[in-house]
Amino acid sequence: MGPHPAVAAIRLAVRRVLNDLLAEHGRTPGRLTPDERSSSPLVLAACSGGADSMALASALAFEAPRAGLRAGGVTVDHGLQAGSDLRAAEVASRLRELGLEPVESVAVTVGRAGGPEAAARDARYAALDAAAERHRAAAVLLGHTRDDQAETVLLGLARGSGIRSLSGMAAVSGADGRYRRPFLQLDRQTARKACLVQSLPVWDDPHNTDPAYTRSRLRHEGLPALEKALGKGVVEALARTAQLSRDDADALDAWAGRAAAGVRDADGRLECDALHDLPPAVRRRVLRRAAIEAGAPAGSLFARHIEEVDRLVTGWRGQGAINLPGRVVARRQGGRLVIRQG
Amino acid sequence: MGPHPAVAAIRLAVRRVLNDLLAEHGRTPGRLTPDERSSSPLVLAACSGGADSMALASALAFEAPRAGLRAGGVTVDHGLQAGSDLRAAEVASRLRELGLEPVESVAVTVGRAGGPEAAARDARYAALDAAAERHRAAAVLLGHTRDDQAETVLLGLARGSGIRSLSGMAAVSGADGRYRRPFLQLDRQTARKACLVQSLPVWDDPHNTDPAYTRSRLRHEGLPALEKALGKGVVEALARTAQLSRDDADALDAWAGRAAAGVRDADGRLECDALHDLPPAVRRRVLRRAAIEAGAPAGSLFARHIEEVDRLVTGWRGQGAINLPGRVVARRQGGRLVIRQG
Repeated sequence: MGPHPAVAAIRLAVRRVLNDLLAEHGRTPGRLTPDERSSSPLVLAACSGGADSMALASALAFEAPRAGLRAGGVTVDHGLQAGSDLRAAEVASRLRELGLEPVESVAVTVGRAGGPEAAARDARYAALDAAAERHRAAAVLLGHTRDDQAETVLLGLARGSGIRSLSGMAAVSGADGRYRRPFLQLDRQTARKACLVQSLPVWDDPHNTDPAYTRSRLRHEGLPALEKALGKGVVEALARTAQLSRDDADALDAWAGRAAAGVRDADGRLECDALHDLPPAVRRRVLRRAAIEAGAPAGSLFARHIEEVDRLVTGWRGQGAINLPGRVVARRQGGRLVIRQG
Repeated sequence: MGPHPAVAAIRLAVRRVLNDLLAEHGRTPGRLTPDERSSSPLVLAACSGGADSMALASALAFEAPRAGLRAGGVTVDHGLQAGSDLRAAEVASRLRELGLEPVESVAVTVGRAGGPEAAARDARYAALDAAAERHRAAAVLLGHTRDDQAETVLLGLARGSGIRSLSGMAAVSGADGRYRRPFLQLDRQTARKACLVQSLPVWDDPHNTDPAYTRSRLRHEGLPALEKALGKGVVEALARTAQLSRDDADALDAWAGRAAAGVRDADGRLECDALHDLPPAVRRRVLRRAAIEAGAPAGSLFARHIEEVDRLVTGWRGQGAINLPGRVVARRQGGRLVIRQG
């Protein structure tokens, strides 16, 4: 008798990612002899102790030896609740019980920049990056599910800043493609079920149900209401939108990259006539790119800023200089756009 | 003392569209002499009697004579409720009271194709098209607001079929750009307020609050829950997403149109190597276009169909022919894709 379907599903998802990693390292799947072990690539599971990442860790512990890879685990103590250090130690001991080695619990200090969720995320990824480098890990697996992806798309939608913000989380991201998300096509319910049937204790982070957090409100109120109105396929549709939007945004960025070179004069200034001939979607990306190159911080540059610069090209009626974030100024001079700091 | 801000807002929105129309007809704004009147372009307001379209009709009645345009109105009796004919006659008489001329009430028969909402919409646009042609109208104004746009984006999101379905309603659409939507940037509350302060009686279509309708559930449950989770800016963000997605989809369609010619061999068959070199977003559009040209109905062609055809290019391992809607078959033969009916 094979494993429970939920366990089979999480293992298959992890196996696929491990096979990708093996191919990238020029290796074929297969069990290691003890001698080979020390030289085989290490894959880390990032684990909060919640159902998604416990399922991930269990699947990695099962699949890695069969693929000829070493498997370890990292848990991050955010220090945001009393006793979080004990909690992290407990998660680390569960990871060891699964057979992962090395296992590390890393304490971080969460700042305030960008709000509590962004600050915790920044601290977490910095700790995971450091752990990956310390252990020379080939990859760090993250337990984000299709449901997390759907929430991320809705959070991006609320920014209203275009399709890049709809593209959610990438299956492969970080330096050298370090981060891998095997569960992006898997629903949270399957991960939860896999923990249950494997008798894995899981920890429900109180932040996940705290209505002070946007993502928590979305998960427990926003998305269910949307599903009630639009039908049960919403989560899947949002996850598919993420993938399609990501590919579309990549293609348009590539186009804008090529177009940016073609619209400059000999002195590198942007020619308004040439800009005018570009499709609006490409022109706006060229302008955004030029503003960032001039020193405008990407995160502070909103659609309305770019629209205003765009009107220097498409709605020219002698308007003055446009002030952009980062003390960048855009002005039109003699049929050219000059975008620079100061 | 100027008009109430809500009335000023609806008039400004309509005035902008009328100025666009004047420019397209090579005319300048200005009142007409009685002699000029009969030869001046006619603009029709489509009016259900609800707040949005009553506000629209009132703003058109005010602005059109000042712009040198004639203004008329059309209301459609869908025949879906007892007494709908009397209702339509009442709306027509209100439009006449506003000073619109000609005013017409058109009865339609709503079919069943595509569900009740799509069938009613199809019948309505057919009637509006016919009325526009009968009266040789230069344009038909529609009262869709930013809130309607936000709902349309969410309905598109639920299909999960990519950014074209996120692009909502166009400000200009239909044959020769006949349909214009002056209120796409205006919120529903402003239209409602403009009716109130002008003492215009409005009719609330019971369909708009009937939970049997997806859009009604979205309006009264889905969107409010999303706003509660994500903040009050959601409607505006969704409307902005519509505009950005529309421009992006247009640019990518244009790219795919050019690319489609470049990837064909002398016999017009698609070369897999050339397809492989395209960005995924462009390749998928080329494949979708080829399937539609071969006879697949666009509305039945889903993302998963195109993904399967795409794997003939990017994941070739000798797989057999792929069946697509409309008896279209895609197969790979000697490095070429053959997509045809039968």
